[in-house]
Amino acid sequence: MYDLLVIGGGPAGLSAAINAGRRNKKVMVAAKEETSNKLRPAGRIENYPGLPGLSGRELAEKFRVHAVGTGVEIREEEILHLGREEEHFLAAGKNGAYEAKAVVLATGVPQQTSIPGESRLAGRGVSYCATCDGMFFRGKKVMVISQLPGGEQEAAFLAGLCEKVYYLPEYKGEYRPAPGVEVIFGKPLRLEGEEKLARVVTSQGEYQVEGVFIERAGLPPEKLFPGLRLENGGISVDRKMATAVPGLFAAGDCTGRPWQIAKAVGEGQVAALAAVEYLAEN
Amino acid sequence: MYDLLVIGGGPAGLSAAINAGRRNKKVMVAAKEETSNKLRPAGRIENYPGLPGLSGRELAEKFRVHAVGTGVEIREEEILHLGREEEHFLAAGKNGAYEAKAVVLATGVPQQTSIPGESRLAGRGVSYCATCDGMFFRGKKVMVISQLPGGEQEAAFLAGLCEKVYYLPEYKGEYRPAPGVEVIFGKPLRLEGEEKLARVVTSQGEYQVEGVFIERAGLPPEKLFPGLRLENGGISVDRKMATAVPGLFAAGDCTGRPWQIAKAVGEGQVAALAAVEYLAEN
Repeated sequence: MYDLLVIGGGPAGLSAAINAGRRNKKVMVAAKEETSNKLRPAGRIENYPGLPGLSGRELAEKFRVHAVGTGVEIREEEILHLGREEEHFLAAGKNGAYEAKAVVLATGVPQQTSIPGESRLAGRGVSYCATCDGMFFRGKKVMVISQLPGGEQEAAFLAGLCEKVYYLPEYKGEYRPAPGVEVIFGKPLRLEGEEKLARVVTSQGEYQVEGVFIERAGLPPEKLFPGLRLENGGISVDRKMATAVPGLFAAGDCTGRPWQIAKAVGEGQVAALAAVEYLAEN
Repeated sequence: MYDLLVIGGGPAGLSAAINAGRRNKKVMVAAKEETSNKLRPAGRIENYPGLPGLSGRELAEKFRVHAVGTGVEIREEEILHLGREEEHFLAAGKNGAYEAKAVVLATGVPQQTSIPGESRLAGRGVSYCATCDGMFFRGKKVMVISQLPGGEQEAAFLAGLCEKVYYLPEYKGEYRPAPGVEVIFGKPLRLEGEEKLARVVTSQGEYQVEGVFIERAGLPPEKLFPGLRLENGGISVDRKMATAVPGLFAAGDCTGRPWQIAKAVGEGQVAALAAVEYLAEN
């Protein structure tokens, strides 16, 4: 049982972790990737006070080292579902389940369910977790659509099970597909099929697949925690970064604009200190 | 005419200045002292993400150098009154008057009027500005009660005018009084007098003076800008750090707890970006 689970390993999440860690709380950070996918490609960052001129990767590394130095545990893990039990929270991740007394959501810019057909076919060929659902597609043709380099691992895992794996990266960079994975390009236009997924239509062509795995920077907040209230495109919070759910706080890009590092870091601190206060009272 | 006047040179104010400066706004920071009086004495600061282990003075210097590097103007100036004109703000300082289209208040922890008798005798022997009011006390006995080393200059100025100047420091450190200034110790208990100030009673004795100059970290916000709404001991702001007055924003300790650097820096950024948005629309 953790005192605090922080979902997200970007500036807001690591700031929350640093502040709770400094107050001797048992903290776990569930970070989807070692480096925040938004900071990684950033060039020189000139407006984080005190540290001008670092690259996104360098600044992210400073935050990570600082957090680790306060004794918090950072795990490469994606939380797929969060639920409120009577006295605590239960988080289900790709690699395990975690219990915590309080939670800070720091999941980044809220994602929109954006490919036409995706919502209708979710659970009917559309999946967000290869290790969870991959077995249903044994011997079949599938596609991985990924905003993150981490999608390559999902594709590699599926290549060991499926007849054919297409990999459609939605990020720039180098692609190192595993054997058996075919990298394709184009913009996903729609997912088609009646009862279940039959094909993916992209700007470059049509692909007959029975499964599509979508890898995004973050789940839409209301998928992660059903019932979470949104406002102006972000998670609704008060000045203490508390959501309407007792013990559940939010910080950073997921609470709305401006999507900026110092704002995220400040909110992470406020959320953590409010969570520490909550822990003392509950 | 400045685009943005930032009142306060601590972490919130400098963060606001950096962000507005990076957006090519003409920015002036009115800083009461070169180093924030709250950061100056701070020992190791371990929870400002990315820069653990600096002293308060070192961190303040990093913020200052960063702000100067973005082209903003930092003046050693105390703003005593801020007013809203039709299209802009007019700020009256100890050393001059300034016009700005938008203002960020970053004045630090809101001060309370704390010496019994002070409010009643304000303007009747109690002053907050030696250079403004010193001439009224020519040839008389006065006292300077100061929370800041900067009070020594006020006392030195008065020593050139007054018969006698007592200097009561309310901070720890070295005292280097100018010739003619007598340093005294004790806690100010009350200010006495009928129509006007007659004496200051401290825990160490009574002093017959006709003037007392009070030097604090910041004016109470409602003295700086009459009518400003307060909430839980801080200036009331929305999630964009906007007050109820168009073009007037607030950030940092003056908006309420937690009184922390990262929170202040984050709020300074949000306030500046909201001010930039306001400038584009007005």
